[in-house]
Amino acid sequence: MFDSVMVAEQTWPEFKEKVAAGATVFLPLGTTEQHGPHMALNVDVVLPTGVCERVARNVGGLVAPCIPYGYKSHPRSGGGEQFPGTLSLDANTFSLVVRDVIRALGHDGVRRLVVVNGHFENSWPGAEGVDLGLRELRRDGITDMQVMRLEYWDFVRRETLDRLFPEGFPGTELEHASLLETSLMLLLRPECVDMSKVPDDGPAVFPTYDRYPLPDGFVPASGVLARAEGSSAEKGQWLMDDHVGLITAAVRKEFGI
Amino acid sequence: MFDSVMVAEQTWPEFKEKVAAGATVFLPLGTTEQHGPHMALNVDVVLPTGVCERVARNVGGLVAPCIPYGYKSHPRSGGGEQFPGTLSLDANTFSLVVRDVIRALGHDGVRRLVVVNGHFENSWPGAEGVDLGLRELRRDGITDMQVMRLEYWDFVRRETLDRLFPEGFPGTELEHASLLETSLMLLLRPECVDMSKVPDDGPAVFPTYDRYPLPDGFVPASGVLARAEGSSAEKGQWLMDDHVGLITAAVRKEFGI
Amino acid sequence: MFDSVMVAEQTWPEFKEKVAAGATVFLPLGTTEQHGPHMALNVDVVLPTGVCERVARNVGGLVAPCIPYGYKSHPRSGGGEQFPGTLSLDANTFSLVVRDVIRALGHDGVRRLVVVNGHFENSWPGAEGVDLGLRELRRDGITDMQVMRLEYWDFVRRETLDRLFPEGFPGTELEHASLLETSLMLLLRPECVDMSKVPDDGPAVFPTYDRYPLPDGFVPASGVLARAEGSSAEKGQWLMDDHVGLITAAVRKEFGI
Amino acid sequence: MFDSVMVAEQTWPEFKEKVAAGATVFLPLGTTEQHGPHMALNVDVVLPTGVCERVARNVGGLVAPCIPYGYKSHPRSGGGEQFPGTLSLDANTFSLVVRDVIRALGHDGVRRLVVVNGHFENSWPGAEGVDLGLRELRRDGITDMQVMRLEYWDFVRRETLDRLFPEGFPGTELEHASLLETSLMLLLRPECVDMSKVPDDGPAVFPTYDRYPLPDGFVPASGVLARAEGSSAEKGQWLMDDHVGLITAAVRKEFGI
Amino acid sequence: MFDSVMVAEQTWPEFKEKVAAGATVFLPLGTTEQHGPHMALNVDVVLPTGVCERVARNVGGLVAPCIPYGYKSHPRSGGGEQFPGTLSLDANTFSLVVRDVIRALGHDGVRRLVVVNGHFENSWPGAEGVDLGLRELRRDGITDMQVMRLEYWDFVRRETLDRLFPEGFPGTELEHASLLETSLMLLLRPECVDMSKVPDDGPAVFPTYDRYPLPDGFVPASGVLARAEGSSAEKGQWLMDDHVGLITAAVRKEFGI
Amino acid sequence: MFDSVMVAEQTWPEFKEKVAAGATVFLPLGTTEQHGPHMALNVDVVLPTGVCERVARNVGGLVAPCIPYGYKSHPRSGGGEQFPGTLSLDANTFSLVVRDVIRALGHDGVRRLVVVNGHFENSWPGAEGVDLGLRELRRDGITDMQVMRLEYWDFVRRETLDRLFPEGFPGTELEHASLLETSLMLLLRPECVDMSKVPDDGPAVFPTYDRYPLPDGFVPASGVLARAEGSSAEKGQWLMDDHVGLITAAVRKEFGI
Repeated sequence: MFDSVMVAEQTWPEFKEKVAAGATVFLPLGTTEQHGPHMALNVDVVLPTGVCERVARNVGGLVAPCIPYGYKSHPRSGGGEQFPGTLSLDANTFSLVVRDVIRALGHDGVRRLVVVNGHFENSWPGAEGVDLGLRELRRDGITDMQVMRLEYWDFVRRETLDRLFPEGFPGTELEHASLLETSLMLLLRPECVDMSKVPDDGPAVFPTYDRYPLPDGFVPASGVLARAEGSSAEKGQWLMDDHVGLITAAVRKEFGI
Repeated sequence: MFDSVMVAEQTWPEFKEKVAAGATVFLPLGTTEQHGPHMALNVDVVLPTGVCERVARNVGGLVAPCIPYGYKSHPRSGGGEQFPGTLSLDANTFSLVVRDVIRALGHDGVRRLVVVNGHFENSWPGAEGVDLGLRELRRDGITDMQVMRLEYWDFVRRETLDRLFPEGFPGTELEHASLLETSLMLLLRPECVDMSKVPDDGPAVFPTYDRYPLPDGFVPASGVLARAEGSSAEKGQWLMDDHVGLITAAVRKEFGI
Repeated sequence: MFDSVMVAEQTWPEFKEKVAAGATVFLPLGTTEQHGPHMALNVDVVLPTGVCERVARNVGGLVAPCIPYGYKSHPRSGGGEQFPGTLSLDANTFSLVVRDVIRALGHDGVRRLVVVNGHFENSWPGAEGVDLGLRELRRDGITDMQVMRLEYWDFVRRETLDRLFPEGFPGTELEHASLLETSLMLLLRPECVDMSKVPDDGPAVFPTYDRYPLPDGFVPASGVLARAEGSSAEKGQWLMDDHVGLITAAVRKEFGI
Repeated sequence: MFDSVMVAEQTWPEFKEKVAAGATVFLPLGTTEQHGPHMALNVDVVLPTGVCERVARNVGGLVAPCIPYGYKSHPRSGGGEQFPGTLSLDANTFSLVVRDVIRALGHDGVRRLVVVNGHFENSWPGAEGVDLGLRELRRDGITDMQVMRLEYWDFVRRETLDRLFPEGFPGTELEHASLLETSLMLLLRPECVDMSKVPDDGPAVFPTYDRYPLPDGFVPASGVLARAEGSSAEKGQWLMDDHVGLITAAVRKEFGI
Repeated sequence: MFDSVMVAEQTWPEFKEKVAAGATVFLPLGTTEQHGPHMALNVDVVLPTGVCERVARNVGGLVAPCIPYGYKSHPRSGGGEQFPGTLSLDANTFSLVVRDVIRALGHDGVRRLVVVNGHFENSWPGAEGVDLGLRELRRDGITDMQVMRLEYWDFVRRETLDRLFPEGFPGTELEHASLLETSLMLLLRPECVDMSKVPDDGPAVFPTYDRYPLPDGFVPASGVLARAEGSSAEKGQWLMDDHVGLITAAVRKEFGI
Repeated sequence: MFDSVMVAEQTWPEFKEKVAAGATVFLPLGTTEQHGPHMALNVDVVLPTGVCERVARNVGGLVAPCIPYGYKSHPRSGGGEQFPGTLSLDANTFSLVVRDVIRALGHDGVRRLVVVNGHFENSWPGAEGVDLGLRELRRDGITDMQVMRLEYWDFVRRETLDRLFPEGFPGTELEHASLLETSLMLLLRPECVDMSKVPDDGPAVFPTYDRYPLPDGFVPASGVLARAEGSSAEKGQWLMDDHVGLITAAVRKEFGI
C-alpha cells in the first residue's frame, strides 16, 4: 500500500509477503493511564509506538497495534488506579491478551518478535504473556520463534542521563509523567502536553512498601511522581536517539540482521 | 488540552471533569483482520472509531481507545483465521478485556456508556464482556451505569441500502471487505485503500454450516466475501451520515441528552 | 442393546463398535429457556434432539446427550435472563463444556461430528467450544477429526417459508417461541404446548441495539417475540422434513457417506 | 401444562408460580459413562433423575434438567476415562456448570434446593460448584438460599443392604455398574439392560492408590467393578423405596415442609 | 550438602544428580486446618511430610516441599471453613498448584512421582491436578512420567486398626483430629499436642448429606469429629510403621526399585 | 500451646483469640529455586520466614505458612526455569493462591496483614494476589482489612550496604544467591550452605532485555548472578538486624501498634 511500517496499514498480502521475507515484528505494550495534569492519558501508547516505528524502519520490520489497555497502575510507579482515566486490566487478562497475540503472530509465520513495553507495570504480566504464548506455540509445533522483550527506557546511555539530570538520576520508577516521558511527548505529540500545567507537588517520597487501602497523601495529588519542569522536545530527541539507536543495535545483534 | 473527544487525548483532570459533568463514553471494539487485497488490516479499528468520534462530538461525549485485537474471525463472516495478518483473541480473553475496561470506567465515575462494535465476530463475546463488567460493578456497589451496545452498521436507512445496492442488499455478514466497508475506508483513510487491487473472486457462496478443518476453497482466496467494486468515498459519506445520525439520535433518546 | 441412535442408550461396547465403524456423532446444543406462556422450557432441547435423531437414523449415526443448559438468553433473540425458568451459563462455561465433550469424543475415536445448535445464543460460544476442543485434540495428536457446526433452522427451503408465512418471513431472531418452534413442538411434544395460552402481545419491536439494564417493556411480557397463532403439527412436519432432509444431504456430502 | 414435576416441562409462568409458592427444586448431577457391557451409558442420568422425580412428587417440588456430562471417571470408582462412551468434563468445567445453574436458580427465586448426585466422581466438584454458586449469590445480595447436597445411594437402610448382600456389602465405590445400579436400571429402564451380557470378570481388586498412566489390567476389562448377577427389578424397588423414602424424610425435616 | 531427603535442602546440582539417577520424588499435599483444641493447625502438613521422609529414606527418594494450603475443609470430614485458622484454597486454585508443580518436576527430569495426600478434602482436586499436570507434560512431549497418588492413612493393616479400636473403627472420615492423627502427632511433634485439651463433645453424628448454610450444631464445637482420648505416641508408632512399611512396599513394587 | 508465633503451631482457639486481640499476621511468599551450587533450594522460604518470625515477636504477631512454590524464575533475576530444582507456578496460579489465602485470613477475622516477599519474581503476581483478595473481601462485606506488602531486602540502611560492599552495591536484582542471601543463610541455616562450593563464574553481565528461547551462556552456569565469596553469618546478622528493625518500625507506624 503506502510506505508504512505499521501492521495495521498493510494489506494481508503485504503482511504475508513481508513476514515471509523475515520481517521482525515489534509489539508495543501500552496502557491508558494518568500522566499528570500536563499530559494526556496516551503517553504509554505514544512513546513505545513511536520508538517501535523508528526501530522498525531501521531494520525493515513491522509494528503491530499497540495494546492500549495495560496492567493496573501501582501507586509507587504509576500513581495507582484511583486516578480517573487510568483504565487497566487484571494481570491475568493482560497476560492472556499478550499470549493470544503472540500465538496469532506465530501461526501467521512471524519468527522474530520484539515486545516493547511502554508501561512499567506491564513488565511482569507482559513477560508472563510471552512465556504462555511461546508455550502454546511449542505445543502447536512451532518451536523456532525468537523473541526479545524489553522496556524501551532501559536503552539509554549513562551520559545522556547525566546530561538530563545534572544533579543525579532519580531512578526509573519515579520517572512516571516526569522529565523523560514529558520530553519524549513534547517531541512526538506536543499538542498532548501543556507545560503550563506541570505541577510542583513532587517528587514523591515513598516508603519501601505498598499499602492497602491506599492512605491519603501516599501519592502526590497531581499524579506526577518526580519532576517534569525543564522538559523539552530537544531532550526528548536525545532520549529518542538513544532508545532507537540502542534498540536497533540490540535487535540487529540478536537476530543477525 | 486541545479540542479532542478522544479519552486518550485528555489529561486526567480533564477526563475527570467531563465524566463528572455526565459525558457519555463510547468504547469502540475493533480487531486486526484481513480485509481483502485492497484494504489495510485496520478497517475494523478505523471505522468504529470514526463513527464514535463523530457521534461523540454530537453529544458531548468521549471516545475510549479502540480495542485493536478482537475475537477470532469466522470463515463465513470474516474469512477466518488462516489469513496472515488476522490477529485475534480467544473469546474468553476478549470478554475479559471488555469486562475489565467497563469495570475501570465504572469505577472512574462513567455512568453512560455506548459500546460500538466494528467487527462482526465481536458481537457476542463483546455482549458477554458487558454483562460480566456490569455484574462486577453491581458487586462493587455501582448499580446505576447505563449501557448501550450496538453494531454501527445496523444504523442505516433502508433507502440508503437501496441506493447503494440497486440490485438488492446481500446482507450484513457477506459485506466483509466489500462495498460498505470499502466506501467508508475511502472516506476516512483513502491511503489505506487501493481500488486497483479489488478482487473479483466473490461473492462467496457459503453453505449454511461451519466446517472444521476449513476445506480448500471454502472462502474466496482474496478474503473479500461480497463485491467491493463501485465503492467510493461519496457512498462512504452516505453511510457515515446514516450511522452518525441514527446513533446520535438513539443515544440522545436513551440517555435523555 | 435395543434399536436406538442415542449414545446414552448404547452400552460402551456398542458405542465403541459403532464409532470404530465410522459412525457420525451428532451433538445437540440446547438450553432451558422461557418459550412463552404456551410452551414448556424444554423447546431448545426437544427440537435439536429430535432433528438429530432423525438425521442420525438416515446416516447410521449416533446422538450424544443434548447439553441442557446453554448460553445466556439475550433480550432481542430469546427475551433475556429475567424470565424465571431461563437457566443459563456464562459464555466461558458453555464453551468449556463444548470443548470438553468434543475432546472426550475425539479421544474415544469419533472422527465425524455434527454439532447441531438449537438455541440461538449458543451459536458463538458453541463455535468457540468447537475451536477450543479441536485445538486441544490437535495438541493431543488427533488431527483428523471432521466437524460440521450448524443451526438446524437454517436448513429450510424458501418455498416452505413462503408457505408458512404468506405475508413474509419476519426473520430467524424474532422467531423465538413463535410459529416455527411452536409448530415443531406440536409435532414432537404436543403435551408441552397449550395453544390456548398463545399470547398476542407480539411481535416485538426492537431497536438496533442492546440496553443495560433492561428497560421496562423492552421485551413483550409474554416472552414470545413474534406470533405463534396458526401453529400446527402439520406445519411442524413441513419444517421437520426440510430440516432432516437438508441436514442429511449436507452431512452425506461433507462426510462422503 | 400437564401434570409434571420436571422443570423442563413447565411453562415459565408455571415455573414462576411454583417457585413463588416455595417449591423445592431438585438438581440431579449425572454423567455419560460406561456401566459394563450389560447396561447403557445413561445409568448415572436415569437413576438420580428417577429418584428426584419421585421425591419431588412427595414434597411438591420440581426437578431441574439433569447435567448429563459429569466429572471424569476414576479407575477405582468408575473404571476410568479410557472406556469409549465415557464422556466427561474437567473438574473446573463441571464446577462452573453447577455454579452457574445454582446462580440462575437463585436469581429466579428458588430458595430451597437439593443437589442429588448420581455419579460418584461428581461429589467433590459438585460440592465446589455449590460453594461457588452460593458465594456468587451472596455477592448478589441473595443470602437466604437453603441447599442440601447428597449422593442418593447413601439413603439406604442397613437391613436393605443386608437383604441385598447376604454375604456382606462390598462398599459403595466398587458398586459401579454392579448389583445396586443394575437393579435400579431394571426397575426404571429395563430396555437399557441386557442381563445376558453381565460379565464375570469382577470384582475388581484395587490397590489403595491411583496409578498414572493406568497399567494394563488395573480395571476389569468389562468395566464392572463388583458383581451384577442376581440383579432384579424387585431389588431395584427395595432400593428405590429406601432412596425415595429417606430422602423425602430428610428434605421435609431440613426444609420444614 | 548434608544428609537430607528434602528437596528443599538440596543444592540444584545435588537435586539434578539424584533425579538423573532415577530418584523417586514424593510430593506431600497438606493444608492449614483446625484439628481440635488440643492440636496445632499444622497436622496435615506434619503427618504426610513425616511419612514421605521415612519412605523416601527407604527408597532413596526425595521429598518436595509440602503444599501448606489445601482445598477447603468440608463440615463432615474436616469440620468446615468456619473454624478460624482453617486457611484453604478454591478447588481450581489447588488443582492448578498441583498441576504446575508436577509440570515443573517433569520438566526437571523427574520420572517417578508419588503424590501423598495428608488432608482428606485434597483427594479429588489433587487427583485432578495430577491429571492436568500429566496432560500438559504429554503436550510438551514428556510421556514417560510414572505417578502414584495415595492417601497415607489407607496404608494400615486391619490388625493395627483392631488393636487401636477394640470396639470397632469408626471410619476414615470421622477420624479428623481424632485418635489416629493425635497419636501420630504425639509421635512426630508432641509439643504441638496438649492432651489436657482433648474435648469430649464427639463423636459427631452427621446426616448423609451436606447442608448450606451450615446449621448451628452441625459440627461439634471443638472441631474434633470422633474421639481423641487414649492417643499416644506408641500408637502413633504403630500407625507410622504401617504407613511407612506399606507405602514403601507399594512404591518398590510399582516402580520396580 | 507452646510459645510460638507460627500460625501453624497454634490451635484454632489460640489463633482465634490472638486474631480477636488484633494480632498482625505476616504472610511470607517464597519459592523453591536454585541458589547456586553452594546453597540449598530453600533460600527463598528460609529468609522471609526468618524475618517474619523475628518481626512477629517484636509486634505480637503471627506468621502464616510460607508459600513454598512461587512465580517462575526469570533469567536476569533468578537464573531462569531451566535449572533443575527450580519449581515454580504460572503467574495466575500464584496470584490465585495469594488471593485465596488472603480471603481466608479476612474471613477468619484478620484485619492487619503484612505480605513479606522473599523471591524477587513474586513481587508482581503477589501484589496482584493482594489486590484480588481484597477485592473479593470487599464484595463479601469486609472492607477494613489493612495490608502492607513488601520485599524484605528493601529494608536495609545505606550504611549497611556500604559496609557490605565497600566497592559499591551491584543492585538488588543481581544479588540472587550472592553475598546478601548467602550471609543470611549462614546466619539462619548454615547447614544448608557449603562455602567451598561458591562459584566464581559471576557476576552475570546481562543485556537490558529478555531473550526467548534462552541463549546458551546468557546466565552463569552456576546460577549465582553476582558474587558470594566473603559471605558470613556476621554479615547476615547485620542484614537481619536492619530487616527486622526497619520492618518492625514500619509495621508499628502503619498499624499504630
